[in-house]
Amino acid sequence: MKVNNKHFRTIYFDKGKVHMIEQNALPFEFSWFTSKSYKDTCMAIKTMIIRGAGAIGAAAGYAMAQAAHEAPSADYNQYLVTARHDIEATRPTAQNLFYATEKVFNEALKGRAQAIAEARRLADENAKEGKRIGEYGNTIVKNGMRIETHCNAGWLAFVDYGSALAPVYLAWDSGKAVFVYVDETRPRSQGGRLTAWELHNHGVPHAILPDNAGAALMSQGKIDMVIVGADRIAANGDVANKIGTLEKAIAAKYYNLPFYVAAPCSTIDPNTKTGRDIVIEKRDASEVMKQCGTDDKGNKHTIHVNHPASGCVNPAFDVTPATLITGIITDKGIIDASESALSNLLVSK
Amino acid sequence: MKVNNKHFRTIYFDKGKVHMIEQNALPFEFSWFTSKSYKDTCMAIKTMIIRGAGAIGAAAGYAMAQAAHEAPSADYNQYLVTARHDIEATRPTAQNLFYATEKVFNEALKGRAQAIAEARRLADENAKEGKRIGEYGNTIVKNGMRIETHCNAGWLAFVDYGSALAPVYLAWDSGKAVFVYVDETRPRSQGGRLTAWELHNHGVPHAILPDNAGAALMSQGKIDMVIVGADRIAANGDVANKIGTLEKAIAAKYYNLPFYVAAPCSTIDPNTKTGRDIVIEKRDASEVMKQCGTDDKGNKHTIHVNHPASGCVNPAFDVTPATLITGIITDKGIIDASESALSNLLVSK
Repeated sequence: MKVNNKHFRTIYFDKGKVHMIEQNALPFEFSWFTSKSYKDTCMAIKTMIIRGAGAIGAAAGYAMAQAAHEAPSADYNQYLVTARHDIEATRPTAQNLFYATEKVFNEALKGRAQAIAEARRLADENAKEGKRIGEYGNTIVKNGMRIETHCNAGWLAFVDYGSALAPVYLAWDSGKAVFVYVDETRPRSQGGRLTAWELHNHGVPHAILPDNAGAALMSQGKIDMVIVGADRIAANGDVANKIGTLEKAIAAKYYNLPFYVAAPCSTIDPNTKTGRDIVIEKRDASEVMKQCGTDDKGNKHTIHVNHPASGCVNPAFDVTPATLITGIITDKGIIDASESALSNLLVSK
Repeated sequence: MKVNNKHFRTIYFDKGKVHMIEQNALPFEFSWFTSKSYKDTCMAIKTMIIRGAGAIGAAAGYAMAQAAHEAPSADYNQYLVTARHDIEATRPTAQNLFYATEKVFNEALKGRAQAIAEARRLADENAKEGKRIGEYGNTIVKNGMRIETHCNAGWLAFVDYGSALAPVYLAWDSGKAVFVYVDETRPRSQGGRLTAWELHNHGVPHAILPDNAGAALMSQGKIDMVIVGADRIAANGDVANKIGTLEKAIAAKYYNLPFYVAAPCSTIDPNTKTGRDIVIEKRDASEVMKQCGTDDKGNKHTIHVNHPASGCVNPAFDVTPATLITGIITDKGIIDASESALSNLLVSK
């Protein structure tokens, strides 16, 4: 995807180092973070320098490759086992993290070069999957559609293209008029900060929507479709995604609007039976209680935005039941959010 | 209600001046704004120094009394007409603003003293109504209940007690254990700033909830009831309230949870047939794009919190259809959100 008309990927690997866009600095500053070790990359995942289902997967794969690159020959396997444990402990909900870590771990047992090749292959695959999701998704985007999306499931959340935004980009590039309502997505505002920045760079018309305003716009007939990403899809079609996704899905059902989830097959977790079995990450209260940003002069500040003496809850994700999902846009086609459709898809893979 | 164990009302009138808590400074600073003229009070309503359905009503009544106090004898009636127009132009959605302005205007035509007496009577009435709403509402609050509320419909939104929070205060004071989940309520965060501050001062256990997390907590069985306030209740029971109320009502319906609206009879507008006829205020984009607050050292900053080059939408209210409302807790009792129940209530008044 493009920033100021130059092509970028969200994350790439070069000589043992992982380079990634510093997403915490966006939209105020476009800068890069360089990770010199797998532990650096773990920190980057934890602190959300890199975030988003697919990008976390790519980062985890690269972290595992870094571990292979760093591991002392005398203690190679044990180093890999420890690294795998550390990487998997960064964030519990995103399925792609576990998917990529396992794949690269298995190759790393064969050798360093294999680990790096596998991590690169997974990142390339991730970019290609995004494009294919976009192509399938574009078939259901009609000219003039007003699409609501939640959080950031664009190219910053993947290696390229994205999941929920890929259909939007391909629709726009194919000449369709689209308008995107971007949920702000408190507490970390990935919609208002990242998705809005992406769409702006791509030239796609959009407006930031306070999270509270989605149902109101639906009630006024101003939204035609909702597309969101996914952090993990259970075997029965339940979907874990950014907190607030569930509320949009319920509202879309109430107003009979199509509600699509977009994700590559690697986000489907056949070992998780239903949404109830998905571990939901609880993040620090400071994310709700404080906000960072820049003033009109460009100076950075972190301010209290709520009553400091009060407590808060901060679940990072919620689970949308399959019954609320119109369909899942995957890199292999659009399917129902059902156990049979998902298992058929994985078999066909 | 109490702040640091001292009793306060949100707003009061003294010798032509209106004193009101500076709500934009909360929760970081407890200070007072003094309005010296009706135009000052109009500015205070517009800029949300004072806000909340009942408090806006009291402020509008006092503004009208100030106009009577200021009006030159030679041009008394014309001054009142102009003032009424200015006051009614401050904010379009809150019914209590129009209710109080009309009442005080009619008394002002009789004389200055009558105007002031009527404005004082309306403010007293507002405080009493809050207490009665609390008494009726307390009958449906069970020991141990976890109640979600949206925005601020506590004593800061009224002269005293509040609407949605009045049942909570009376339940807590009568010895019931209650826990309040306080929706942050972006963009202005009246939940996280005002409701949390109020509950903290009253000692009621609570937690701030990102607006996105309501349905997730409902899905986990962590919420027993939702109570919100109202800015205007149409004749058929549709309710205009802070943006996001509709989304909570839809989610509560989906999870079969009781969803109550609390408001004095003065919020019912028999001249507005349905929710479609309610004028919804659109507020400035800066409310969504920027946030103000204080850093750890107590210095105030206003920062950009979203992508500055993107646009946004900022409807201040939404309309919840009567079909989603379990009941309306009024100062005359708890009634159905239906045309017949509302018209009976107004007749009985």
